[in-house]
Amino acid sequence: MSQSTPYERLLAASREISLLASCASVLSWDEQTYMPREGAEHRSAQLGLLAGLVHEKATDPELGGWLVEVEQGGGLGLPDAPMAVNVREWRRAFDRATQLPKRLVEELARATSLGQQVWIEARAAASYARFQPAFERILALKRQQAACLGAGPADYDALLNDYEPGATAANLAPLFETLRQGLVPLIEALAAAPRRPDVGVLKRDYPPERQRIFGEMVAAQFGFDFQRGRLDVTAHPFCTEVGPDDCRITTRYNPRDFSDAFFGILHETGHGLYEQGLDRNHRGTPMGEAVSLGVHESQSRLWENAVGRSRPFWRQAFPQARRVFREALHDVSEDAFLFAVNEVKPSLIRVQADEVTYSLHIIIRFELERALLAGELSPADLPAAWAEKYQSYLKLTPGNDAEGCLQDVHWSAGLFGYFPTYTLGNVFAAQLFDRAQLDLDDLPQQIERGEFAGLLGWLREKIHRHGKRWRSTELVFQATGAQTSPQPFLAQLTRKFGELYGL
Amino acid sequence: MSQSTPYERLLAASREISLLASCASVLSWDEQTYMPREGAEHRSAQLGLLAGLVHEKATDPELGGWLVEVEQGGGLGLPDAPMAVNVREWRRAFDRATQLPKRLVEELARATSLGQQVWIEARAAASYARFQPAFERILALKRQQAACLGAGPADYDALLNDYEPGATAANLAPLFETLRQGLVPLIEALAAAPRRPDVGVLKRDYPPERQRIFGEMVAAQFGFDFQRGRLDVTAHPFCTEVGPDDCRITTRYNPRDFSDAFFGILHETGHGLYEQGLDRNHRGTPMGEAVSLGVHESQSRLWENAVGRSRPFWRQAFPQARRVFREALHDVSEDAFLFAVNEVKPSLIRVQADEVTYSLHIIIRFELERALLAGELSPADLPAAWAEKYQSYLKLTPGNDAEGCLQDVHWSAGLFGYFPTYTLGNVFAAQLFDRAQLDLDDLPQQIERGEFAGLLGWLREKIHRHGKRWRSTELVFQATGAQTSPQPFLAQLTRKFGELYGL
Repeated sequence: MSQSTPYERLLAASREISLLASCASVLSWDEQTYMPREGAEHRSAQLGLLAGLVHEKATDPELGGWLVEVEQGGGLGLPDAPMAVNVREWRRAFDRATQLPKRLVEELARATSLGQQVWIEARAAASYARFQPAFERILALKRQQAACLGAGPADYDALLNDYEPGATAANLAPLFETLRQGLVPLIEALAAAPRRPDVGVLKRDYPPERQRIFGEMVAAQFGFDFQRGRLDVTAHPFCTEVGPDDCRITTRYNPRDFSDAFFGILHETGHGLYEQGLDRNHRGTPMGEAVSLGVHESQSRLWENAVGRSRPFWRQAFPQARRVFREALHDVSEDAFLFAVNEVKPSLIRVQADEVTYSLHIIIRFELERALLAGELSPADLPAAWAEKYQSYLKLTPGNDAEGCLQDVHWSAGLFGYFPTYTLGNVFAAQLFDRAQLDLDDLPQQIERGEFAGLLGWLREKIHRHGKRWRSTELVFQATGAQTSPQPFLAQLTRKFGELYGL
Repeated sequence: MSQSTPYERLLAASREISLLASCASVLSWDEQTYMPREGAEHRSAQLGLLAGLVHEKATDPELGGWLVEVEQGGGLGLPDAPMAVNVREWRRAFDRATQLPKRLVEELARATSLGQQVWIEARAAASYARFQPAFERILALKRQQAACLGAGPADYDALLNDYEPGATAANLAPLFETLRQGLVPLIEALAAAPRRPDVGVLKRDYPPERQRIFGEMVAAQFGFDFQRGRLDVTAHPFCTEVGPDDCRITTRYNPRDFSDAFFGILHETGHGLYEQGLDRNHRGTPMGEAVSLGVHESQSRLWENAVGRSRPFWRQAFPQARRVFREALHDVSEDAFLFAVNEVKPSLIRVQADEVTYSLHIIIRFELERALLAGELSPADLPAAWAEKYQSYLKLTPGNDAEGCLQDVHWSAGLFGYFPTYTLGNVFAAQLFDRAQLDLDDLPQQIERGEFAGLLGWLREKIHRHGKRWRSTELVFQATGAQTSPQPFLAQLTRKFGELYGL
């Protein structure tokens, strides 16, 4: 050790912390997939121990010393050279970790673990009143966290930065407002359109085993490497990276619904392709890690929507689908099927929302969680504020709390500032897909031929291999030559759905 | 921490070490079951890191200080009271861990990791010459380990004690000799017996999915709690405990063989019932851990053989088997089936050996590994010595090294002193089953009715709940009132197979 440079010592520490954290990833994956029901208590103790060990290593004062040495030593190259990037991100992570008192970390862990259990019961009983006390406690702790990490208890950006480094509410608010102003009239126009899809064809018999085979086939065609990953079944779909050659995605099958599992698989495949495309030479360091949740979501949305719900994709996939699901699809045309998987319909539940209305669900949550953190909205008034926003934006009112403010797990898990990354993902995805179409001059034709290597290669080159080299908006700028803007997303939606609905 | 007693500090440390080690159990299980093929390299790095962290915690000098304090303080109660037992075992584990230089631990880890890879290739090529250099290195390191832990490089007991604390070669040798003297004439008599089983009935079509259902049904009837455990498929069957409510067993299915998977499931179920029966109040401490591999194997052998290959068991299970495997069994009688699953036939491969010949395979390995460690047998001469022993004990000669001295993974993994625990398990199981029959006066009738709670309760009371309270031979003495002896095992075999073969 005495012969190594401070940078080398930081590198070794970074890899060890990453390796230890990846052990917890296996345990979390197992918890969702195969763990026996009664194993939960021991599992939470295991995960708590590993989280504590990771936090201990991440806040080791020695790291701080090496960071100072390496920062003062210079010679790291340009700001976006790997060494400089790693040092910048190690500093950021070290400061954020050490700014949080251990007591607060532990209290948050306990409160959110409890919070999620209470949330499950409260949601089952559709009773916000049962959740409110736990939620108040979590909110108070999140305000303390914001105060530790940022300018004060109302500092939303301090929390947002856990998921989207560099993003600010001040930048997001006008972007979301533009989006809202574009989406509301589009939704109205589509509601009044002469044509309607027949979504009944998606609610026929789709045997789960065949859904799995069809989904895995498309995931593999997209480029997901099943020698370096797998697909399992869980209650809530997710993607987790265990190691450079071990990325796992999940879905759930409804035997009377085609869309749920299939588009879920495409979505998680998009996340998985990002993880599988990170630079293996930089594994265990920021240069080999995903840059933000927004960019992660841009990859999942791009493969799910821009590719997976497009006409060129179904031109080659529908004949295959019809062979696999002969009984369900023998009397369905490609056009009818394409229209059905693109139905637009305002709904109360975010996770069931279509491409067009989805962002309104996010905007509502973004507005409410900022008001909660700022103390402008009291937890007691959340259900009413929720109902008011849904009526205003989507012309719907929840029948109860379960289909209202209790529908998402996020707040019960302490995830404040997480929701905006979903919509940022849609915005980035549209910008990236537009640019890929310019750079790859026959992309629709490639997709129509079932060739996805061109698009994947473009994403590998422009996004995946860069890790945390730049902040997300800069990364998208480097890839597209354009500033972050909701216009490409709005334009894509207007064009695609205008055509489908015959506007 | 300052307010706690040394005992309380040791307790907390013991639970933390156990909890951390249990994280590695999840990763090892996953490696055998669901890990994507390419994930192996990262997995070995993860397991190496966790093993290092466990070793670090287990050799923390603070532990040594607390041990001295608690040992000098007294007040731990009788030698078999929980506190005294835990302190005794913590001392033992601490001394053994600290007696090994870190360099040797690391070299052994590397040499055995490499050794297992070389062994796989050498076995596939049936070439001992390819394995010999790696094996010589492992043997040299194991001799160093024996010197660190015991009286010198030839101290077999020092290694044996990793698996069977308290056992000595001096005690095992006469026990094994008695066994050999009893088994050889029995095997000869059975070979000359007028009746032969028709094992063809076990080689018919047994659809794997139905094998799984039938196996799980019997495991559940035995008392294995599938809310606190599960059954998966692996190349090599095993049982692993992840936590007090999470015990996992595995098997492998051959669609043209009934016995492999079924008796494998019963065997691993026996291991699993032991783990599920440990005292949960003592979890994370020696009082809540299995006492030895020999006792563990006694539980698996008891359920697999004494129960699972018995006439009373099949009296109730055969009608069920015939309903599940109608095509395979419609023309088979209960007697013919019972005889078939009890075929005795000398063979070259240990893992395929029957109840009677199995111990001879172990005795051969026990004799050879002691000679190797003592330097009386050179690695170069192993294949010849192996062939000579098989000819002498089983009247068979291996056609090549793969069915000779390369068949087992153990030595390539550094497991010297492990084999004897298999036979100890058979010996203990016979003693325990005899005693259970005395204590439970209608045990055969209970089994014939498919009632296993009486037997399981007896094992829970006599074996499982005691953890490491006593050494294995003392535990069996407390349970049966008898010293360790091979006679009950020999008597059971002679009685059962004499009857089946019509001697």
